[in-house]
Amino acid sequence: MTTAKPQASARMPDARDMAERLLAGERTALARAISWAENGDARYPAFLAAVYPRVGRAWRIGITGPPGAGKSTLTNELVRTLRAREETVAVLAIDPSSPFSGGALLGDRIRMEERTSDPGVYIRSMASRSSHGGLARASADACDVMDAFGFSTILMETVGVGQSEYDVVSAADTVVVILCPGAGDGIQAMKAGILEVADVLVVNKADLPGADQLVLDLEDAVRMRNVKRPLDQGMGERWIVPVVTASATRAEGLADLVAAIDAHRAWLEAAHLEASRRRRRVEQVRRVVGERLAEELWGPLGNTARAEALLGQSITPYDVAEEILGAILSSTPHPVTDPDGPR
Amino acid sequence: MTTAKPQASARMPDARDMAERLLAGERTALARAISWAENGDARYPAFLAAVYPRVGRAWRIGITGPPGAGKSTLTNELVRTLRAREETVAVLAIDPSSPFSGGALLGDRIRMEERTSDPGVYIRSMASRSSHGGLARASADACDVMDAFGFSTILMETVGVGQSEYDVVSAADTVVVILCPGAGDGIQAMKAGILEVADVLVVNKADLPGADQLVLDLEDAVRMRNVKRPLDQGMGERWIVPVVTASATRAEGLADLVAAIDAHRAWLEAAHLEASRRRRRVEQVRRVVGERLAEELWGPLGNTARAEALLGQSITPYDVAEEILGAILSSTPHPVTDPDGPR
Repeated sequence: MTTAKPQASARMPDARDMAERLLAGERTALARAISWAENGDARYPAFLAAVYPRVGRAWRIGITGPPGAGKSTLTNELVRTLRAREETVAVLAIDPSSPFSGGALLGDRIRMEERTSDPGVYIRSMASRSSHGGLARASADACDVMDAFGFSTILMETVGVGQSEYDVVSAADTVVVILCPGAGDGIQAMKAGILEVADVLVVNKADLPGADQLVLDLEDAVRMRNVKRPLDQGMGERWIVPVVTASATRAEGLADLVAAIDAHRAWLEAAHLEASRRRRRVEQVRRVVGERLAEELWGPLGNTARAEALLGQSITPYDVAEEILGAILSSTPHPVTDPDGPR
Repeated sequence: MTTAKPQASARMPDARDMAERLLAGERTALARAISWAENGDARYPAFLAAVYPRVGRAWRIGITGPPGAGKSTLTNELVRTLRAREETVAVLAIDPSSPFSGGALLGDRIRMEERTSDPGVYIRSMASRSSHGGLARASADACDVMDAFGFSTILMETVGVGQSEYDVVSAADTVVVILCPGAGDGIQAMKAGILEVADVLVVNKADLPGADQLVLDLEDAVRMRNVKRPLDQGMGERWIVPVVTASATRAEGLADLVAAIDAHRAWLEAAHLEASRRRRRVEQVRRVVGERLAEELWGPLGNTARAEALLGQSITPYDVAEEILGAILSSTPHPVTDPDGPR
């Protein structure tokens, strides 16, 4: 299941060439560049630098929720609705390649393919376990590529279950969380701090029993907490997370959902957009640094053999980590913990 | 929802004292030490070092599968069965504190509590998002604590959906994957490489329609791949993943499951146990190093402000990462990429 790392071959187009082709609107370049991001290809950083002035124009919408909430159907309808107002839309679908995804993904993807004959739509899926390095890093890179290509809206759809999926949607400008009645989702969601990640809440399958109660519960929770991800506290008005009802299979509620997304965008653009996106980029810096350090530390010539040699019944992993860290940190400029300087 | 980091107070028992209390069988010390692990408490490494000679005696069983497969019921029955043969059992239940867990957890936990009046059983849950640092690091540490305390078997139960949950069960000696008929789980599971992680497959709810077909499909897949996680290739006999049928709610199939776990244990102990556990400890070293480096790099005196200052519309996160990495890696002893030595 691992993705083969592409060979660095002289015949392959280089980063600058790929950037030109992307900016010229070539779809093959779009697909290839996303693969570079996904596979941690060494050419990706130079490619990104070449297209980076064009990054930042797309609105990024994260869509998440439990399996069975109707995310894919709603995403499909959202694409249709956005296309009707002349937006171009890229969809990044994070498929859990975990063994335990629940099995509905294949059918959902086939439905999405209906849209692929439309040149204003691009659909790409990314396996949550096949990406080289972190999923959050790779998916954010993929969004940068789609953004540079010129799509006006990017939808990131993920099954919201684990920490890594949570990290993915947190990188969106607007996060839409989809719930549906039943299974105690509403209460669980509130307990687990769903309001920290949601900018817009959707109660899908609004025709099912329990939908009205779920809406009331969520609205109560919004009122009580009245706080989303703390942006710059005390700066401007708070965003009150709206609760939208929808029935994706009947194509109902889409206008309300789009209106809620637009309202959140207007709110964010009025005050917080720059700070929000700067924070997002700093997160990406951290991920890149983390991956690169892991490669340096644990690559073929790294510390794995050293760790194996050090480990024994009376040496804990913390002791070994201390040894390895000592070699790095004592030689790093460090203002506090190392009064003796480099040794 | 974040776990408060305990205050470093002179009144709190220190690491060595805690270790003595743990080894003397104090349950409060057990609970406290696991919290230290979960919260990344600074006293944990010294505590672990003091108890480490007692770590490694317990058999660690990871139990995972999709929501609704019946993991908690089966775990409960497995505890009962193991207790009947005089084993002492600790259960580490990883509750996804993700908003999207599906809601069945609370009821499951209440059922588990039936066992808490038995002194040979200890149940602890760990929220998948509240742990300081990584879940995989914290859960492996928690198992070490339970192991040092003296439990003969440790069950780690997790909803197998994301990468981090997958990492958790990969640290077990024996991984049991529970599936049930319906929802295309079998086919999805095989596609997604379930055999890479499973040592024992359980088809639960074996009385439901489709169970026989799921068993056949899984057995076919086992035959075709005939490979689990590549241990030391070519070293000894391969482990053939057995497919066990069970009906946890009727307490059926438990004897077969325990026999399969015992057989896997015998196989692993005959040849691969040391290598498997060394690999597990090396993974833990990597996680500890990663967390510590992240603290050093991004803590209060770290590079976050520097990254924020560097980032601009024409500076990519990769460029900024390169800057930050340059300062660390150029000063690190490094056999390959730095012929000029430290500057």
